[in-house]
Amino acid sequence: MYYAEPIARLIEELTKLPGIGPKTAQRLAFHILHMDRAAVEAIARTMVDAREKVTYCSICCNLTDQDPCRICADDGRDHSTICVVQEPRDVVAMEKTREYHGLYHVLHGALNPMEGVGIDDIRVKELIARLGDGKVQEVILCTNPNTEGETTAMYIARYIKPLGVKVTRIARGLPMGGDLEYADEVTLAKALEGRREI
Amino acid sequence: MYYAEPIARLIEELTKLPGIGPKTAQRLAFHILHMDRAAVEAIARTMVDAREKVTYCSICCNLTDQDPCRICADDGRDHSTICVVQEPRDVVAMEKTREYHGLYHVLHGALNPMEGVGIDDIRVKELIARLGDGKVQEVILCTNPNTEGETTAMYIARYIKPLGVKVTRIARGLPMGGDLEYADEVTLAKALEGRREI
Repeated sequence: MYYAEPIARLIEELTKLPGIGPKTAQRLAFHILHMDRAAVEAIARTMVDAREKVTYCSICCNLTDQDPCRICADDGRDHSTICVVQEPRDVVAMEKTREYHGLYHVLHGALNPMEGVGIDDIRVKELIARLGDGKVQEVILCTNPNTEGETTAMYIARYIKPLGVKVTRIARGLPMGGDLEYADEVTLAKALEGRREI
Repeated sequence: MYYAEPIARLIEELTKLPGIGPKTAQRLAFHILHMDRAAVEAIARTMVDAREKVTYCSICCNLTDQDPCRICADDGRDHSTICVVQEPRDVVAMEKTREYHGLYHVLHGALNPMEGVGIDDIRVKELIARLGDGKVQEVILCTNPNTEGETTAMYIARYIKPLGVKVTRIARGLPMGGDLEYADEVTLAKALEGRREI
């Protein structure tokens, strides 16, 4: 115990956060000790507040402070299209394009048998339930273009197709501003496979 | 505003911390939202608690939750030696060596005219005040071996020497486990200058 007890405890608590090692925790702790008391209280309150107020939308499973969430409750959006993503931050990424005006469905993960994440651990059931009333015409699978994301997309597609809903997968190809020379083989193969007439 | 308001506010608050950019803040925020409510409250409480209980030791200016701090109040330590360091974390670094058993003095910074840190912005006056009663026989200057630290050490040495107290500077040289080949010229020059008979 080299630090005074409250400091040691603060460092210990901060180390529990992801990506915060002992050195970073120490730096953060000293920063907090030098902050205005009001500012520290503000951060602390915001944390507890967010944890208390934020829940899952009963329709799309996104994180929200009102149920249904703003997007699901918005009549101006296209309720016949659902974009399926892995995480809440993916919804934000999609929204930032300003090109998508349909609804979302957040899976909160992707299938990963190696780490024991099965079909019941992600929100697939909730997605199927949304397709029952025939209003949804297209499901766009926007899971990540890696092993877990591809597997999840394949699985969900196989599940949904028999229900008579159009299922599409987001395009894999060369990133804009990229360079053919530096693209990896898998991306290049996918880009070639996904070529379209112009 | 792509996130629900409490999430957006949490991300914003976290971004104010040093070394936490928007992406890290987002990752931390989602982690916090998925934590146990009790765990979130524990972190929040610890932050406010630490900020409230921790003050400066009236003798050595180190951060402490009791005054005088544990080190200054420890009669088992050598009260005739003061090790002058820049930051509270430097006290911890020194303590970890288990080789030093005297007292400390924490400056909370180093002279840096470029950034407007002058002699009144660091705790030099407090150090001088401790030398008045003649009990202290040696002051070891352990500021960092860089421009600011060296300047600060020179300045303090010039101030203290007339008071008849022995002033020493921690050795600069090759780090243990290092390699002569990879040492920079300044370090090597300092190591040569500081050579001792064996």
